[in-house]
Amino acid sequence: MRTVERILDELKDMINSRKYSPLRSKLELLEPVDVAWLLGQLEPEERSPVFRLLPKEMAAEVFSELEADEQEQLIESFGDRELEFVLSGLYSDDATDLIEEMPANVVKRILKHTDPQKRAVINQLLKYPKDSAGSMMTTEFMDLKANMTVAQAFDRIRKVGLERETVYTCYVTDANRKLEGVITVLEMLMADGEDTVGELMNRNVIFFHTLDDQEQVARAFDKYGFLAFPIADGEGRLVGIVTVDDAMEVIEEENTEDIEKMAAILPTEKPYLKTGVFETFRSRIPWLLILMISATFTGRIIAGFEEALAAQAVLISFIPMLMDTAGNTGSQASVTIIRSLSLQELRFKDLFRVVWKEIRVAVLCGIALSVANFLKILLVDNLIFQAHVSVAVAAVVCVTLCLTVAVAKLVGCSLPMLAKKCKFDPAVMASPFITTIVDAIALLIYFAVALAVLKI
Amino acid sequence: MRTVERILDELKDMINSRKYSPLRSKLELLEPVDVAWLLGQLEPEERSPVFRLLPKEMAAEVFSELEADEQEQLIESFGDRELEFVLSGLYSDDATDLIEEMPANVVKRILKHTDPQKRAVINQLLKYPKDSAGSMMTTEFMDLKANMTVAQAFDRIRKVGLERETVYTCYVTDANRKLEGVITVLEMLMADGEDTVGELMNRNVIFFHTLDDQEQVARAFDKYGFLAFPIADGEGRLVGIVTVDDAMEVIEEENTEDIEKMAAILPTEKPYLKTGVFETFRSRIPWLLILMISATFTGRIIAGFEEALAAQAVLISFIPMLMDTAGNTGSQASVTIIRSLSLQELRFKDLFRVVWKEIRVAVLCGIALSVANFLKILLVDNLIFQAHVSVAVAAVVCVTLCLTVAVAKLVGCSLPMLAKKCKFDPAVMASPFITTIVDAIALLIYFAVALAVLKI
Repeated sequence: MRTVERILDELKDMINSRKYSPLRSKLELLEPVDVAWLLGQLEPEERSPVFRLLPKEMAAEVFSELEADEQEQLIESFGDRELEFVLSGLYSDDATDLIEEMPANVVKRILKHTDPQKRAVINQLLKYPKDSAGSMMTTEFMDLKANMTVAQAFDRIRKVGLERETVYTCYVTDANRKLEGVITVLEMLMADGEDTVGELMNRNVIFFHTLDDQEQVARAFDKYGFLAFPIADGEGRLVGIVTVDDAMEVIEEENTEDIEKMAAILPTEKPYLKTGVFETFRSRIPWLLILMISATFTGRIIAGFEEALAAQAVLISFIPMLMDTAGNTGSQASVTIIRSLSLQELRFKDLFRVVWKEIRVAVLCGIALSVANFLKILLVDNLIFQAHVSVAVAAVVCVTLCLTVAVAKLVGCSLPMLAKKCKFDPAVMASPFITTIVDAIALLIYFAVALAVLKI
Repeated sequence: MRTVERILDELKDMINSRKYSPLRSKLELLEPVDVAWLLGQLEPEERSPVFRLLPKEMAAEVFSELEADEQEQLIESFGDRELEFVLSGLYSDDATDLIEEMPANVVKRILKHTDPQKRAVINQLLKYPKDSAGSMMTTEFMDLKANMTVAQAFDRIRKVGLERETVYTCYVTDANRKLEGVITVLEMLMADGEDTVGELMNRNVIFFHTLDDQEQVARAFDKYGFLAFPIADGEGRLVGIVTVDDAMEVIEEENTEDIEKMAAILPTEKPYLKTGVFETFRSRIPWLLILMISATFTGRIIAGFEEALAAQAVLISFIPMLMDTAGNTGSQASVTIIRSLSLQELRFKDLFRVVWKEIRVAVLCGIALSVANFLKILLVDNLIFQAHVSVAVAAVVCVTLCLTVAVAKLVGCSLPMLAKKCKFDPAVMASPFITTIVDAIALLIYFAVALAVLKI
């Protein structure tokens, strides 16, 4: 797919030598999202003239694919009529997204040059909570009436189809816009022209409400393989649709968010290179501070056992290994559980199954790690490094390993599920948070076992 | 969406009281993927009778949505004619997936009861490497000829459309099956019945090769918003299509894989509750062992400075905080970079931009953390806990924090990019691997600064 990048050099040449006619011909053949990418690679002052070259049918779609700062810059360069033309070509969800990204003075100008009907739709869409189905949907769906014949339905599709987000799934509504059924273009193609839509439609419509979570809607696409889902308001009236391409975007956003939370970052919702230094700093420092402060309590535990460590200084050298292993073990369990909760493969009622499984895995891991560690102490530390680690100390370390692994996996698998039950985001219960807890537990176990066995 | 679970109880009652006719009526109204879920909740011996109740048009699709163990159990219960019927209804990609999951004796039986044409297609699909476009695609695409009129095209769609994975995007091929163009049903609906396909079609087809990576294909759906992409062989002949629902599955799988790798787990490719205890153990222990062994080298560093620590025992208590902060800082950077590489927002050539940005973020984080830590030592440790930490020691800790944060972010952001450049999977360069490295570096910095400042 590097053709687009090769074309970029060609296009830059054409722009520099003002070969606008061949430039337009080349752009015409590209997909809107590729044209948008190319515009983004140009200098700001080059963008407007190139944008104006685009065929009219393509302009609005290319505009909707640009980054927010590029859109803002173009709007500033547009005359009023140009702005009206581009805005009239945007689907309502893209127009709403645009308004959400623009500064206030630009929004004023946009709304002034949007026709009243569309303005009302946009205002309605803006009211929906962030991350809800309502904020994701668009209002340009293909609607039919049950008493239409298939032939009449196709006539309607021909008449308005180009202004619809998708025509292949059609929604049948009654006079009050209540959703009665759903029918696909394939079903209508296979039928007779005189059959009615009402006879053919599927009355068991799977739909969502405007206030449903966008992730729930997006995952339904993964589950059912549909092209679109209808969105209804509280009274069962069809108000919009969500299409599968929107769902893919949401899934990627939600995955990025989860991954960032699991690494103790506050989600930024922007590509890496588009976030400034201060913005990145602000997304990372809160958890770093919190975790640093909580890690100092782990330090207090060590300070409390300073005499024991002075008596058997060799104990100190095993602290990093024990803490690291506790952290890795805990986060293996927590990350797995968080991901499964996210994919809706697990529910809170599975808690006991999960805990029972993790205990058994922990026993196996604990045994494997202890044996490996014991051998390592005997063969590597003592023989190669001449560390003279006594068997008693080796036993203390290995017993601690076993117990720590068990506790770490227990904590790691149950905290995310408890978080979900208490309506917190399980992804926050991930690696850094759990690492801090299991680090402290690992040290407490270590010193307890050491005091008991070594009598120090 | 809990209706399906409520229905489950109803259905179980109907099964127990042998009310098969109302049971069939209820199942008929559900989507195949929901029927498959319900079958999965039943006892194995209940599944076959319920499956046999299903309307014939639905049976194959429901079968394709079952889990592999459920499919195997049903196949064992099928007579030969039943098996032939279900297999004949499967799309070639679902049939290929089935064969990949079944044990050898079942595969033999399946191939014996598949018609020769389909068998040849399946054998071809099986040859494609795992995770390639060829392994994802299906062969049931809607193909047209350029000299067809729109009316003839619709006749063809009516004739074969039900056996096509999708009809809404049609591919125009020549006599040698070379891909000439693409046309959508909407474009044909808007045209005149006498226009030819060749006049209307788009000759600039975006396509992929059979050996392209499946993740690349999946992300193209996210970028272009298409319903399907054509897949061509080395000679430009159309051999299959990949549809957007397959892409969503691939994206979720790739995301799960990345998340697991970042937590030092070997990917299992199965839902959590479907992996046994030994399987889970085997996916977690390799990295735990490797990281434990490498953490012991960190322990050797501490052992090397045992006298210094004995002289200033208070230094020991800051070790957990320094190591944890180093690890958290490093994995914030690495996770962000790995995710951006995954979403193709970054390339290796952005390395210097990334490093320059991370250095500046690191300076800000280092200052913030050092100041917070210094205040914490003065106010909390000394005043509340009476720890008597000298200003010199506090300075050592804070300077170490600053340097460690800088190094951790540098290591965290550059290792994944270098890994990608060397064609390794950047996700492996994540949290646990980087944590081990930055832990060791943090300790080395700590002792170097301590020895220099405290003259011990």
